[in-house]
Amino acid sequence: MVWTDRIDQPTLVLNAARCRANIARMAQRARTAGVSLRPHSKTHQCCEIAEWLRAAGVTGLTVSSLAMAEYFRDEGGWKDIVIAFTVNPRQIKGILALASRCDRLGVLVESVATVRMLQEALRKGHEEQLPSDRAVTLDVWMDIDTGYHRTGLDWEAPETDILALARQIHLAGPHHTTRLAGLLVHPGHTYKTRSIAEVEEIHQKTLGSLYRVHDILDSDPDLPDKSQLPLSIGDTPTCSMLTDFGQDVSEIRPGNFVFYDVMQANIGACQLTDIAVAVACPVVAKQPALQQIVVYGGAVHLSKDRIVDAQGRTNFGKVATVTEDGWEIYGNDEVYVKSLSQEHGLIHADAHLMQSVQIGDILLILPIHSCLAANLHKRYQLLDGTELSAVHIPKPL
Amino acid sequence: MVWTDRIDQPTLVLNAARCRANIARMAQRARTAGVSLRPHSKTHQCCEIAEWLRAAGVTGLTVSSLAMAEYFRDEGGWKDIVIAFTVNPRQIKGILALASRCDRLGVLVESVATVRMLQEALRKGHEEQLPSDRAVTLDVWMDIDTGYHRTGLDWEAPETDILALARQIHLAGPHHTTRLAGLLVHPGHTYKTRSIAEVEEIHQKTLGSLYRVHDILDSDPDLPDKSQLPLSIGDTPTCSMLTDFGQDVSEIRPGNFVFYDVMQANIGACQLTDIAVAVACPVVAKQPALQQIVVYGGAVHLSKDRIVDAQGRTNFGKVATVTEDGWEIYGNDEVYVKSLSQEHGLIHADAHLMQSVQIGDILLILPIHSCLAANLHKRYQLLDGTELSAVHIPKPL
Repeated sequence: MVWTDRIDQPTLVLNAARCRANIARMAQRARTAGVSLRPHSKTHQCCEIAEWLRAAGVTGLTVSSLAMAEYFRDEGGWKDIVIAFTVNPRQIKGILALASRCDRLGVLVESVATVRMLQEALRKGHEEQLPSDRAVTLDVWMDIDTGYHRTGLDWEAPETDILALARQIHLAGPHHTTRLAGLLVHPGHTYKTRSIAEVEEIHQKTLGSLYRVHDILDSDPDLPDKSQLPLSIGDTPTCSMLTDFGQDVSEIRPGNFVFYDVMQANIGACQLTDIAVAVACPVVAKQPALQQIVVYGGAVHLSKDRIVDAQGRTNFGKVATVTEDGWEIYGNDEVYVKSLSQEHGLIHADAHLMQSVQIGDILLILPIHSCLAANLHKRYQLLDGTELSAVHIPKPL
Repeated sequence: MVWTDRIDQPTLVLNAARCRANIARMAQRARTAGVSLRPHSKTHQCCEIAEWLRAAGVTGLTVSSLAMAEYFRDEGGWKDIVIAFTVNPRQIKGILALASRCDRLGVLVESVATVRMLQEALRKGHEEQLPSDRAVTLDVWMDIDTGYHRTGLDWEAPETDILALARQIHLAGPHHTTRLAGLLVHPGHTYKTRSIAEVEEIHQKTLGSLYRVHDILDSDPDLPDKSQLPLSIGDTPTCSMLTDFGQDVSEIRPGNFVFYDVMQANIGACQLTDIAVAVACPVVAKQPALQQIVVYGGAVHLSKDRIVDAQGRTNFGKVATVTEDGWEIYGNDEVYVKSLSQEHGLIHADAHLMQSVQIGDILLILPIHSCLAANLHKRYQLLDGTELSAVHIPKPL
């Protein structure tokens, strides 16, 4: 008996011990650095894994959608959540309903227009429905763009724009229903780095950018002073590779670190042996003339995310072989997943793998991007054959 | 009231009239060419859409997994199905169980080893469980690689190899439990073409390759003659762009044509106005300095599939705007989806779109690859607000 004996189709396998070690390590880093850890839980979307985070001292989560926040509130009892996604005006009603069931619900904004929509809805809610002792206050974070250029108010925006947003959050409305929670940044451009020096450089620029905005807010006597405006940063490379996150940073929000993946290993944020998830794939064909092994395991099991690796190849996954108690990375770097279609994976194989693997065997593929692979499977099989079942599955519309 | 008023999160919208027109057109092409149409239903994975195919005269389906075949058999009553995926030895028991409930179940092989495993299981099944009048026969197609190099026996393989596979299927075993169904090819290299001339060239090479294998089989007196060994070809570009599929081709298996997508339009297999699905995405931020609009709609809604478009840009989707009864492609080719993260989409916008679209509006994104987008959503909202509910959702392990 091997642990893969009962696997008959592409299956996301989780090495729980490795995942818990990743969690313990990040919790320790946060403690040492004196910051709190609010893990981004879009990576796992699983209440059982969230319990492992709780056991490591985590008291608040980050998520990327309202539905995910509702899931962790209702299925996991989490009452301190940040939805790290620019407020979607079409879901404000749901956001407020959720806020009334949380101790602290944080949201992200970058425009005065969106804050006004939030405040209008909060006022309506307060006037029409809610008794005054149930008054909802939303934690509103200013999302700052420090160079990733995905979302956020540009850190170099004119002072008047920065102050206008902060003042709208903090001062407008008779009820002070929106609380200026602090400054938040996702420096996702670390994903393009390949060394600790590059990550450190981005981090220093990120801090410098945040400090400018912080100082601008501090200069306005109507706004809370610096000490009341925490800085929240988050991305797995920075949080995995640096130890000092800088003055005034009070919170880190890495997500991917619970599993890691080939992309993170490529950046240098982890070792390949830290990766806690792999997709077990049945071998269905061997084509020695093409130096190719075909597995059942494709884009619907791994996602079409890819890296261009050190050899300049477009790489869709790293190959590993089954061991008694898990998997072992296949040593030859020439062996990789060269192509994925909907259900097929094509592995570029060397002579040894071609000989040692038979049709019907299992090979494992370490995902390039574990968040997307986990989202596709929505279930985890542990190495002992049991399954984590508490996974977020969006409800029908 | 606009039809998008009730959409509050990324939603896959299906223009049913357009989908049915795509189906009618392909059914007509097949009739004109004198071939039968066995649509690949991995694209839609939906019994209600399969009924639209049935209404157009379709009597058999193609699928890409055992689970999908079970779904169409059990939920849709389809009894003539080809699982167009190399037999996975770990699922043979399930394949045989399904075969016993179908009139014809077809599978693909490329190796003698796999055929032997099938025959062994069939023999065991017959001896141990099945009464003789329930003897299962499997339709076994020889998967031929004519140049795509994903799966299949190389069309240039030595005659002895080609005959060995055919003879193993046709002759081995006391029960003749595997029936040599014919030759099957998926010439997926048409996806790299950009003109009808290139598609025609691939098709002629494909036919030439199949004819070689056909003639080899025909020369063996122990095997069925050519007329009993149909040729099945399939890929949306060939089936959409050519009208004559060639002598002895009896079946076509396109799949993507029910929806089409930006990739197919890029190849020339459809017009952008034929595309029947789009992801409706709420606008959450506008960043004029970056010429960028941020929508709620990312890799978990569209997949990370991409094309390098005619302008040399990596393109993750085509933008369309809401109209009274559907959507309209945004005219300026400079506007496209330039980046996707898990939940965010970044649209490169022109000045007009930047001005005319407001935070909270809906924009639509036509997927690069509609099969993967549909697989991520597992539901379809029609333009009248109703939903197709009969979608294949894999059961727990």
